[in-house]
Amino acid sequence: MKLPGSTFSRYTLAGLLGVTLTATAVLGAAHMDKKGLEDAIKARKSHMQLYAFNLGLLGGMAKGEIDYDASSAEGAAANLAALAAMDQGRYWPEGTEAGMMDTRALPEIWSKMEEFDTATDGLIQATMTLEEAAGTDLQSLQAGLGDVGKACGACHKPFRKPE
Amino acid sequence: MKLPGSTFSRYTLAGLLGVTLTATAVLGAAHMDKKGLEDAIKARKSHMQLYAFNLGLLGGMAKGEIDYDASSAEGAAANLAALAAMDQGRYWPEGTEAGMMDTRALPEIWSKMEEFDTATDGLIQATMTLEEAAGTDLQSLQAGLGDVGKACGACHKPFRKPE
Repeated sequence: MKLPGSTFSRYTLAGLLGVTLTATAVLGAAHMDKKGLEDAIKARKSHMQLYAFNLGLLGGMAKGEIDYDASSAEGAAANLAALAAMDQGRYWPEGTEAGMMDTRALPEIWSKMEEFDTATDGLIQATMTLEEAAGTDLQSLQAGLGDVGKACGACHKPFRKPE
Repeated sequence: MKLPGSTFSRYTLAGLLGVTLTATAVLGAAHMDKKGLEDAIKARKSHMQLYAFNLGLLGGMAKGEIDYDASSAEGAAANLAALAAMDQGRYWPEGTEAGMMDTRALPEIWSKMEEFDTATDGLIQATMTLEEAAGTDLQSLQAGLGDVGKACGACHKPFRKPE
């Protein structure tokens, strides 16, 4: 089902909130105890898990392993767009990088925060486009999903430690 | 910051999608292997984790343990509302109840699906109201959060196994 307005309103939301939607709003962690830091890591891993869960369905459809279904595809794509647009500032307190905690988050997240923001903005855009496309047909889903994959990589390559 | 329209558009979205936003759209699990079932459980636990993370900040503010900050409160409340409105039909394949898998999900989720839907709708409503209220002042946050807590309990009591 097409949902005219939903993407626009999310875009508007992103525009109004500006940086608070992205990682710039990193909280000072001076007052944060170890549990607070661990909770932030747990939350961002959960967030990634939800991307993966929704991408699993869409990727399966794109590869022809799962029958294309417009409604399910649209639901999963809308989930991705909702997740990408969420306020994630609290996920990245200082002191939660690889080497200090159990995480693959590279220190570049904090030293190159503007680039990190740009990368997360890229995911917001790509998931909004996918949300519009996913319910149209399989080919549109595949195209939109390709761009989401690129947006994932544009953040993971510079900012996530390889396994 | 007040975001006129954002709650309305989410409400519209929920209205248009109807049952697909809630648990009615349970997928038949006949074709689903064990990994598929485990992935669904992992996803719903991640989703709950994100509720907890955002509620942690708001609860801390409501109790006076964390200084009230309108912008952070609004961000966390908007996150809760976005999470509640997400399409969660794929979280509940048959065969993922307590006793069969590592989960506290009671069989009543499947045997009383309409009541489960009503409970999840209650959370959508309560989080939308909280999103409107959280940035106003501490008292409004506290009131809205109280109703979200009731909505959590209205689902957990009948549908989640005690620890």
